[in-house]
Amino acid sequence: MFTNKMTQLLRIQYPIIQAPMAGGITTSKLVAEVSNHGALGMIGAGYMTPKQIRDQIREIRELTSNSFGINLFVPSEFEVEENDIEKANQLLKPIREQLHVKDKASIEIPNFNQVCQIFHEQIKVIIEEQVPVCSFTFGIPSREIIEAMKQHGIIVIGTATTVNEAIEIEKSGMDLVVVQGSEAGGHRGNFIDGHQESLVGLMSLIPQVADHVRIPVVSAGGIMDGRGLTASLCLGAQGVQMGTAFLTCIESGANEIHIKEILHSQEDQIVLTRSFSGKWARGVKNKFISDMQQFEDCLPPFPIQNTLTQGIRKAASSHKNRENMSLWSGQSPRLAKKQSVKALIQDVVAVLNKI
Amino acid sequence: MFTNKMTQLLRIQYPIIQAPMAGGITTSKLVAEVSNHGALGMIGAGYMTPKQIRDQIREIRELTSNSFGINLFVPSEFEVEENDIEKANQLLKPIREQLHVKDKASIEIPNFNQVCQIFHEQIKVIIEEQVPVCSFTFGIPSREIIEAMKQHGIIVIGTATTVNEAIEIEKSGMDLVVVQGSEAGGHRGNFIDGHQESLVGLMSLIPQVADHVRIPVVSAGGIMDGRGLTASLCLGAQGVQMGTAFLTCIESGANEIHIKEILHSQEDQIVLTRSFSGKWARGVKNKFISDMQQFEDCLPPFPIQNTLTQGIRKAASSHKNRENMSLWSGQSPRLAKKQSVKALIQDVVAVLNKI
Repeated sequence: MFTNKMTQLLRIQYPIIQAPMAGGITTSKLVAEVSNHGALGMIGAGYMTPKQIRDQIREIRELTSNSFGINLFVPSEFEVEENDIEKANQLLKPIREQLHVKDKASIEIPNFNQVCQIFHEQIKVIIEEQVPVCSFTFGIPSREIIEAMKQHGIIVIGTATTVNEAIEIEKSGMDLVVVQGSEAGGHRGNFIDGHQESLVGLMSLIPQVADHVRIPVVSAGGIMDGRGLTASLCLGAQGVQMGTAFLTCIESGANEIHIKEILHSQEDQIVLTRSFSGKWARGVKNKFISDMQQFEDCLPPFPIQNTLTQGIRKAASSHKNRENMSLWSGQSPRLAKKQSVKALIQDVVAVLNKI
Repeated sequence: MFTNKMTQLLRIQYPIIQAPMAGGITTSKLVAEVSNHGALGMIGAGYMTPKQIRDQIREIRELTSNSFGINLFVPSEFEVEENDIEKANQLLKPIREQLHVKDKASIEIPNFNQVCQIFHEQIKVIIEEQVPVCSFTFGIPSREIIEAMKQHGIIVIGTATTVNEAIEIEKSGMDLVVVQGSEAGGHRGNFIDGHQESLVGLMSLIPQVADHVRIPVVSAGGIMDGRGLTASLCLGAQGVQMGTAFLTCIESGANEIHIKEILHSQEDQIVLTRSFSGKWARGVKNKFISDMQQFEDCLPPFPIQNTLTQGIRKAASSHKNRENMSLWSGQSPRLAKKQSVKALIQDVVAVLNKI
């Protein structure tokens, strides 16, 4: 039987974490199914209210008695001029009209204090409900939060994109570090290094991180099968976190258009954009990304741009309009399959018998 | 003993190619030393004259009886307006003055016909001298060239950055494909897909290419030790090509400042730039890259910008001025060591005994 510090800490059979994808993908069924088959199911709770979080935790507990986890976004300060919001609204106006999305007047711009308040309420629910594992992206929470979680027996995971970020995560007292390579789909997790500087491929990143931290390293980005798992172990990781591979599973809550687009994409159609949310993220190229590209550097920061495009993304999803949806994907779409969680996990771990 | 189709085709003991770095790095001593220790030494001949090529081939034959290879740049058409050259010269003027480099008047701008003529003369010498292996970057040579080389028993290698490029290389009749991940140092080898679209990490790229071609796949980018070799084999490659790892070897012809800069860099200081040559390339960030960054999209194409900056790079090298040198490096500088070729190869292949 395969076992290492990662599987022991997370109390799982296989060294696999299902990436906590936000935005309705990580249904209770997906999370529970992953945990029931020996990997770690994770709720992507970054955009969820404290009440939604509590309800989903309880729902998952009905479906599995195994370990599972949850992910939160660490808030970072943001500033924006009214003028920049107005400029972004002008750019989005024709798309809103085309999709019959309500006017900007109805959009409530978040402020940093509100975001922090929600974050603390999210933390409170996770501690009260005693979720076994909690991971963080976009930064490191305060020492008080990390200590409170650990005192309640919660295993705490950080997300790094460079060696320096991994070192800071270890210093903060977290138990594991997920190392996100440039291959990864969805939002970039960099929080110390800049965007360009933190786009490091896993072949380079994993051994360099492994040489500099003692906590278990989990490899994330473009991993879809047993080849990626064994390669990650060779490079010095203790296991993998897979997002896109679980996104296209039957149990995932992803929009069917999103799944179809990944299944029909090539690796050279997957690009980086900050047009959807104000934060750099990787997904299938479409008209929204192409049209916004030239204005990309001037758009408001996360989470403001995310709020501004929310109506567009929602309407595009329900109208099955692929050109205005955020079709997040890692760089290995050719390896994606529509299959059950059980089939995916069994396929990936088959290689562990040969080690 | 480790053996596979790659080692058989290239007639080498270990599945390792020393990347054909151009610009004086691949001295005869380096190439011969690599071949003498069981890997494939390669001359980076992209910028060399036919006479220099012939001389170096003969010099290497004095130093080794083992297999070795050579690399050429496939010319692609370029066009430039006189006005754009003038703009680039204006940007370079203060740097030329600072380094006491001769004025632009002495610079001879190459034209496409000349470049093609030199390429055909380079090919002629390689066939006449019966070099065992010839690799190409920046494109696929004509069917006539590939056939002529193969008729003379030369093993022909292509360089791809995406699945589609690898498929075209296989179709052209070449024997192997080097797959360059986004981690790789020096010039990007993309020739079908655009720059952004072809920046794919090896963890994603190798398995997707391996699923689509039958010729042996060689993994290149950020690989410096046995971890990268075994990970590449797990992903579906038959071996590796290593550049930066050989660049910092004692036998390398790289400038000592270049070596020192790599040895003291972190992965988040390695960036992409097209300021030095007009083609995107990866290296250690310095003042030249930072200062030119905002003009990057308007600079003349390769090889024109390369010609315009030649004097600057040369003067900077001899003045040991790191701020104006092209300090090419892959994304794993923390793994670089100053060591002998023998020590490097022995360190990398030690893992083969465990497979």
